[in-house]
Amino acid sequence: MPASAWGGLKKYNYYNFVKDNKLILAADNLQITNSYIAQAIQNTDPEPIVEMVLNCENSGAEIIDINSGHLSRDAELKMTFLVNTVQETSELPVIIDTANPVAIEAGLRANKKKAVINGFSLAPQRLAQVLPLAKKYKADIIGYLLYPDGHVPMNGQERLDIAIELLKEFDKEGIDRERLIIDPVLVPISWENGNLQAMEVLSVIKLLPEVFGFPVRTIIGLSNLTTGEGYRKKKLFLERAYLSMLASSGLSITLLNIFHLETVKTANACRALMN
Amino acid sequence: MPASAWGGLKKYNYYNFVKDNKLILAADNLQITNSYIAQAIQNTDPEPIVEMVLNCENSGAEIIDINSGHLSRDAELKMTFLVNTVQETSELPVIIDTANPVAIEAGLRANKKKAVINGFSLAPQRLAQVLPLAKKYKADIIGYLLYPDGHVPMNGQERLDIAIELLKEFDKEGIDRERLIIDPVLVPISWENGNLQAMEVLSVIKLLPEVFGFPVRTIIGLSNLTTGEGYRKKKLFLERAYLSMLASSGLSITLLNIFHLETVKTANACRALMN
Repeated sequence: MPASAWGGLKKYNYYNFVKDNKLILAADNLQITNSYIAQAIQNTDPEPIVEMVLNCENSGAEIIDINSGHLSRDAELKMTFLVNTVQETSELPVIIDTANPVAIEAGLRANKKKAVINGFSLAPQRLAQVLPLAKKYKADIIGYLLYPDGHVPMNGQERLDIAIELLKEFDKEGIDRERLIIDPVLVPISWENGNLQAMEVLSVIKLLPEVFGFPVRTIIGLSNLTTGEGYRKKKLFLERAYLSMLASSGLSITLLNIFHLETVKTANACRALMN
Repeated sequence: MPASAWGGLKKYNYYNFVKDNKLILAADNLQITNSYIAQAIQNTDPEPIVEMVLNCENSGAEIIDINSGHLSRDAELKMTFLVNTVQETSELPVIIDTANPVAIEAGLRANKKKAVINGFSLAPQRLAQVLPLAKKYKADIIGYLLYPDGHVPMNGQERLDIAIELLKEFDKEGIDRERLIIDPVLVPISWENGNLQAMEVLSVIKLLPEVFGFPVRTIIGLSNLTTGEGYRKKKLFLERAYLSMLASSGLSITLLNIFHLETVKTANACRALMN
């Protein structure tokens, strides 16, 4: 294998990402559950945001997920601040990750590059208030394979049934199908049927392009797998093994803690293998 | 996940292995290319063999591959010595890994437990001299997806075509199909089309049970992937990422360097995920 196939990731190109690339790495580190970030958002202080984005990019991030939480107060102001700060720091595309439609729209208005909305589901409010924003702002959007009441489907078949409903809603809205990114919803392996669910998610990722009849993109929140109690090193082994399985199932994008150096190296190894 | 699902491998049970288990670990460490082992075979000195087998078992081996090389002189004596020494040390099944039919037969005569012959192919000499030993000694046998002249097939389709020929020969010999283990033949990733071949091997492992119409077992020599020059740590990342892909493709057995601790931990993580 030539050294170049291993060493580092090739310079990010959104159109490659959209059309061809597999296992794109989206950093989930810029999130409000990090108190340092929460404080920066509260004070509209750009420094901690800039530092985080630069660290993410240096660690191999190819997309920055802006997980602002709900932003109940000053939602427009804060999301505008976040998107502006990230895009003044980095060329990377952003994921606008909040349940608050007002914040999403503010983020899309501020966006000057490529943005992904995270996201919608069959929940009536999301269909009514979030999905139309993808059309209005010509943005990509993540669709969750969840029941309308937020319940997680039990298995792969239920996920595929929901995916078909989700695509119907997408088509009804008249959005270009290439804008859809499906999140099959990974649950913690510590759940009673967590192992089974993880295996079913792999099948769903493999089957979706066939079921839909076009090469739909998929995304997984990798950190979900090992949420909860447990020995850190074991969690990291599970995360890396599962990431490789996701890669060979054809996953397009993984959200992950980009500071898990060995996980990023595993992703690079997968890409070298699949190149 | 309960601690027990992660911690260590459950006590080996051959019948579970035959019927159900996935990703069984076969140590490839007892091999004549190790000069310490070569000398022990030369001198019929059991101590280095005993030490190696105990180390393999302690490191997580569930099968011991006895790779004796061709054994051109005193083949019967030396293979008998090897099988006896291994089986006096450990309860684990053995793989009798040599191209020499005289040595294979000596090994099978000495065998008191479960043995796997490694192996046969469409090469006429192997079909005539090795395959019949599986029937005579009621042993499992590994079949290589290689052309009769030893050439490696170019892709997955060629491998499947060869697999069908191999199964015909197996049936012609009148051996129970449950005794067959297919090795799709992994080539170094440093070969010109090494990445493509590695991906095709994953497809073959997935497709074989469907093509054959029964849950045929598969085996891979994992060390082949990273044979050749290269930075050791990168090789280990490739090995572990590919092992996880093999696991999710349904691989039954992997031959590996069982002293690669992180690779064994990755295998355990895969088994915890797939449990």
